[in-house]
Amino acid sequence: MSDAAPEFDGRGGRWVGASVPRREDPRLLTGRGRFVDDIQLPGTLHACFVRSTIAHGRITGIDLSATLAVDGVFAAYTAADLDLGDIVALLDRPPEEFATTAMPILAKEKVRFVGEPVALVVARDPYVAEDGAELAVVDYEPLGAIVSEDTALAQDAPLVHEEAPGNVLLNVSMFDTPGVDEAFADAGCVVEVVTRSGRQNALPLETRGVIASWDDHDDQLLVQMCTQVPHQVRTALARSLRVPERTVRVTVPDMGGGFGQKCVVGREEIAVAAAARRLNRPVKWIEDRREALTAGFLAREQRYRTRAAFDADGRITALDVDIVCDMGAYSCYPFTAGIEPLMASAEMPGVYQVPAYRVRARAITSNKAPTAPYRGVSRPQYVMAMERVMERAARELGIDPLEIRRRNLITQFPYTGVNAVTYDPGTYRESLDLAEATLRDEGWYEFRDKAAAEGRHIGIGFCCFSERTGYGSGAFAKRKMAVVPGFDISEIRMDTTGSVVVTSGTMNHGQSHETTLAQIVADRLGLHIDQVKLRQGDTERIAYGWGTFASRSVTIGGSAVALAATRLGELLCRIAAHLLDTQPDNVRLDGEGGVVQIDDPGRRASFEEIADVAYLRSNLLPKDVEPTLTATASFDVPGDGTFSNATHAVVVEADPGTGGITILRYACVEDCGVVIHPQVVDGQCRGGIAQGIAGALFEEVTYADNGEPSAASFIDYLVPTATEIPDITVSHLETPCAFTENGAKGAGEGGTIGAPAAVLNAINDALRHTGVELDTTPVHPQTVLAALDAAADPERSRPA
Amino acid sequence: MSDAAPEFDGRGGRWVGASVPRREDPRLLTGRGRFVDDIQLPGTLHACFVRSTIAHGRITGIDLSATLAVDGVFAAYTAADLDLGDIVALLDRPPEEFATTAMPILAKEKVRFVGEPVALVVARDPYVAEDGAELAVVDYEPLGAIVSEDTALAQDAPLVHEEAPGNVLLNVSMFDTPGVDEAFADAGCVVEVVTRSGRQNALPLETRGVIASWDDHDDQLLVQMCTQVPHQVRTALARSLRVPERTVRVTVPDMGGGFGQKCVVGREEIAVAAAARRLNRPVKWIEDRREALTAGFLAREQRYRTRAAFDADGRITALDVDIVCDMGAYSCYPFTAGIEPLMASAEMPGVYQVPAYRVRARAITSNKAPTAPYRGVSRPQYVMAMERVMERAARELGIDPLEIRRRNLITQFPYTGVNAVTYDPGTYRESLDLAEATLRDEGWYEFRDKAAAEGRHIGIGFCCFSERTGYGSGAFAKRKMAVVPGFDISEIRMDTTGSVVVTSGTMNHGQSHETTLAQIVADRLGLHIDQVKLRQGDTERIAYGWGTFASRSVTIGGSAVALAATRLGELLCRIAAHLLDTQPDNVRLDGEGGVVQIDDPGRRASFEEIADVAYLRSNLLPKDVEPTLTATASFDVPGDGTFSNATHAVVVEADPGTGGITILRYACVEDCGVVIHPQVVDGQCRGGIAQGIAGALFEEVTYADNGEPSAASFIDYLVPTATEIPDITVSHLETPCAFTENGAKGAGEGGTIGAPAAVLNAINDALRHTGVELDTTPVHPQTVLAALDAAADPERSRPA
Repeated sequence: MSDAAPEFDGRGGRWVGASVPRREDPRLLTGRGRFVDDIQLPGTLHACFVRSTIAHGRITGIDLSATLAVDGVFAAYTAADLDLGDIVALLDRPPEEFATTAMPILAKEKVRFVGEPVALVVARDPYVAEDGAELAVVDYEPLGAIVSEDTALAQDAPLVHEEAPGNVLLNVSMFDTPGVDEAFADAGCVVEVVTRSGRQNALPLETRGVIASWDDHDDQLLVQMCTQVPHQVRTALARSLRVPERTVRVTVPDMGGGFGQKCVVGREEIAVAAAARRLNRPVKWIEDRREALTAGFLAREQRYRTRAAFDADGRITALDVDIVCDMGAYSCYPFTAGIEPLMASAEMPGVYQVPAYRVRARAITSNKAPTAPYRGVSRPQYVMAMERVMERAARELGIDPLEIRRRNLITQFPYTGVNAVTYDPGTYRESLDLAEATLRDEGWYEFRDKAAAEGRHIGIGFCCFSERTGYGSGAFAKRKMAVVPGFDISEIRMDTTGSVVVTSGTMNHGQSHETTLAQIVADRLGLHIDQVKLRQGDTERIAYGWGTFASRSVTIGGSAVALAATRLGELLCRIAAHLLDTQPDNVRLDGEGGVVQIDDPGRRASFEEIADVAYLRSNLLPKDVEPTLTATASFDVPGDGTFSNATHAVVVEADPGTGGITILRYACVEDCGVVIHPQVVDGQCRGGIAQGIAGALFEEVTYADNGEPSAASFIDYLVPTATEIPDITVSHLETPCAFTENGAKGAGEGGTIGAPAAVLNAINDALRHTGVELDTTPVHPQTVLAALDAAADPERSRPA
Repeated sequence: MSDAAPEFDGRGGRWVGASVPRREDPRLLTGRGRFVDDIQLPGTLHACFVRSTIAHGRITGIDLSATLAVDGVFAAYTAADLDLGDIVALLDRPPEEFATTAMPILAKEKVRFVGEPVALVVARDPYVAEDGAELAVVDYEPLGAIVSEDTALAQDAPLVHEEAPGNVLLNVSMFDTPGVDEAFADAGCVVEVVTRSGRQNALPLETRGVIASWDDHDDQLLVQMCTQVPHQVRTALARSLRVPERTVRVTVPDMGGGFGQKCVVGREEIAVAAAARRLNRPVKWIEDRREALTAGFLAREQRYRTRAAFDADGRITALDVDIVCDMGAYSCYPFTAGIEPLMASAEMPGVYQVPAYRVRARAITSNKAPTAPYRGVSRPQYVMAMERVMERAARELGIDPLEIRRRNLITQFPYTGVNAVTYDPGTYRESLDLAEATLRDEGWYEFRDKAAAEGRHIGIGFCCFSERTGYGSGAFAKRKMAVVPGFDISEIRMDTTGSVVVTSGTMNHGQSHETTLAQIVADRLGLHIDQVKLRQGDTERIAYGWGTFASRSVTIGGSAVALAATRLGELLCRIAAHLLDTQPDNVRLDGEGGVVQIDDPGRRASFEEIADVAYLRSNLLPKDVEPTLTATASFDVPGDGTFSNATHAVVVEADPGTGGITILRYACVEDCGVVIHPQVVDGQCRGGIAQGIAGALFEEVTYADNGEPSAASFIDYLVPTATEIPDITVSHLETPCAFTENGAKGAGEGGTIGAPAAVLNAINDALRHTGVELDTTPVHPQTVLAALDAAADPERSRPA
């Protein structure tokens, strides 16, 4: 179109790459953010859920008469009252691989975890609603509680779902490539590591919430809520309510985080929406922290039994893995209970060249709160498994742990692995080199060894990983999902004043989309960033969108906005050429809010002049151009997607007296392709690492044998604060992605992925002289103490 | 695409042509409509305007201190305080033809009519605001008031605008074709008629209103208001506030009428929006009836001096017309003060074959409330002029008044007139024949003559006219408008449940768009009408729209929705062919919500199945199809547009004792092309005729010599009620329009156009034996009595 295109290709230019002030900050920092609970609608009623007090049982009776007698209670509903369709997530897999189970909106017949919603109470204020809920009488016939892999898979275990024999929701052996057994037979060294990660809560600062109301004028249920996936919620809501999808509108105001917990469809929001429709009054529900901790979607509880064969030089020759993910009581929509084991199966080899691969993965169901994808989605777990294998083999073979990694890292790209995944170029080796150099230059190795001599337990740990980001529909279809996320859409409209509104199907919940997507568009069109406004979070504003998860927003959403901007630029040039009476190939965007004639740069049409014609003097448009300045584009990541990568390096000190672990140094070297906004990427890395450290050292939801959750408040659920999180340095390598429109690869999850393994490796390094070897997270002080005791005296270990 | 297309072409089928129950009725008839004043926002403040008490004068001082001292008054603003850009409407004409004048948002320096807003008071409730406004002290230095054509055009007349010398805003001689003078010289008969129509108020049931608020999250001024043209208001608002247009969102809830009064941009709404932005609080203003009657946009006050030459056979040989339109104090945006004289000049010959044509038209400015296009827009006036000319010539030449019309009517189509306008086919002759036959068959001619013998004054009057509807940008550009309305846009989205949402840039304010546009779409796609939902009235929902005026909604907006539906149908077929593994030309819409394979009708894909792929399994789409089921289209009427036509026939009785006129029979034969919804078109005709009768017999805004308006309440402004409006029969002829997508021509204004002339002709026929000849509307009882007196004794006539 013009020779100025390189100036406006979104891979540099004026805005991309600069840490411009965040567009959302003036609002958020001056208290003008609008979150769900800030929305006040006249006549609003408030909802509270009656929740199961037992982990597993049949409902034999629900008596809401005392509830309904409370002054100010407007209504109370059971599943039978609301008659809603269940949430059902499907895979296109045979029954022996995947058991299709249903999640009712309110419990029907059975309850499957403590906290499961059984009835809904609607009252004039939240306090009355809670009073009413407390008076509900629900009778149960208890069934045995499934609280672990062992109880779930036991011969005579009670079934959480009758549709899931043996309590197995998914059982897939995705790979069994030739040569696995031969490799083990011929191995110079075989290691077997069982790694486990504890159950976590993604714990967004803002809990879930919804205010639903019926809009008479638009003939729509307006559902204002806190979700990462407004269109998916709309689709699921319409199906559950059995109404045309157009009669549901989901809008999302500001959000205080999600981390995946809000990328699946919750049942409470649907129940509240149904109540609002029935009562024809706005109904609000704001999840309280206790609900969030016990009945919100959880994550992470996985076990990997990883056997690896190495040759004598430390090169992996085969991998044989058995994975069990405890998905809790229900399969989440739309991802299903298969999401974690399938992703782990597909991507486990990670950054390493693995010639032969066998994997079996199972998702089990249990009487715990159900799970959702949480930042990283099984990658923190399989990376931890691989990295522990590397460490173990290094020790067995007497090779430096970084050296053994270098011998196995993928260094030639594109690389198609044993897992039939093609990895695009990255800096697997370079990031490791830089991370190591950073610690060496700073003298941490000397410090460690010197401290050891003084009896201190200092350890250095690394983690190398890559992360598929911005999954396209092809990648999801490979998992045989019946609902296949992938594309995203953007629409750009320029108004008569030359400003543009960009609508995206992604859904910011802390990622700074208002800034980063605007940077991309501003550079494409040659606008000032203040002339670009992003809109999201309204299912009416754009036909569909898959929302924000899987580090997809800048890769997919950002590519869609870039494409739409390019198309708008072409449209501007076509009209300008007509107005300037020249050919379209003789004009180009001038980067100053206009189009200039190439062979006579004195001739120019400003965007305002072009817009004046496009809107207000359409008779002057070229005959084949329709009025208005609007462009739309969709983008789907082709093939296997793009891989970000990083190396994390950690220095810890373990206190053998208290069992406490202190992180002394955390260095992250990451490559997410083109960095749109360095400060934002740094923030993503640091936030992710903080959550990874939380998983490595602090947070855990455990359950008693009867299924009672342990962590119903912050007294028991140990969230690290700024005190526990070290300063973190982030270094960027930039390998532009060849097939995203902006060269970016996605940076939302990486921090979380690398931290658990790096911290765990550092702890093991710190304890290297004690005989202790830890493969389970979180590593609590009592874990360390118990392990030290056991190592010192295997017969008389303290209880952990 | 498919051989089923004729079934779904919007010109018949299941829904088009049927009087299906109106989709908007359940809401409106059960009190669930939502009008501007129904909108409640927390923290809303209320506005009241300080208005000029004199017609013309300089402002020498404004003292708002007493206003601001009132408890509950939050703010009071003058023009200087708000510093807003003026509303300026432009024509691309030289200064000698058009004087560009400005309408400030609040009066600056001068006031130009009684009721002009001078200051804005914002208070906690409307009563306090009014109290505060009453305490404002505005000092004026009075200037002479211009209240008539004579005072405006007098030699030493004070100037309403310094930019408009001689108080002339527009002075255009659009046609002076060869042969005019020769035709008059050779004429068998020359008639000269001076027709005048009184100033009227369009008088929508719902007055204007606005609630403006700042939306922190979207960084937008949300202006919820009652307007026919939301995008035009947005454009003007952004310019006046000097902000990017994207930072203004205009939405329109249900509306209680507009009739053109709300198709221009008002100043009060802009002032209120500016106040809301400054105060960062919602501000509401609901125009009260007194404001609506005195300071709302008025219409109609025009004078035509029409000379016509006829040959001896009664054929027109030339027309020479001088038109003066009193546009009041300001030029309206975007149409300008030129809209009425220019339209009259361009279209005056109407349904008659006029070989030579000279016309001069002027718009004058006066110290009266400004005018806006009102249903019919100068056509009631020029049609009345032409029809009075026909009657006069018939009498002079002794030819039957219908016979003389038949000799002059255009009967061969397309017909390009002396005015360079090409008329598409219509039923000019047929409608006259049918109207006459209707009255003859019912015996009205015998009744008239028998009654005359009994001394009663029964008269029969006709009016033949056509009406250009759905002006395209070409037609507006011919008028040299600087802002050129024309196109409209539609977007259609099908959701995963096969329902569609249609967004249109038109703006229903009583026309039943929710029903009629849905009929068109349902037939195109083969959907049930309940599966089609219309959205309008939100500048965010569609890139631009010109709103609803000039009978454009079904012609232009309806064509755009039909085109968009056709495109969506093609998209559905493309995807279905891919899914059915056949070629796109081997499938067609089946009219039952699906696509069927032509050569194997057992093979079919339902819309739900197609939508499932388009949204939720996009990996299965054809490679060249982008995800989602969305189609957009724009439509602009080509060339000179399309002409609806009608003949109205009226029987009246005049009471020479009281001067009262009673309408005994009203028959309308109309042709608006394909009738989408007969009941709706009947309602449009009847409502329009009622407004035409109001103008013919009742409603008039007069001004005292000092510019004081006479009609500030319904005591003085005589609105006819059901008692005064007769039963009206409507017969339909259907000449499908060749170039609108649905064959429709537009039916919104016709009733209003035909009634004044038909009623006036009938009155003159009733008084044919008295020597009275009336050429001015409204014909009040006192008008009739004065005319009878004057005819009886020209020396001693009663004052009218």
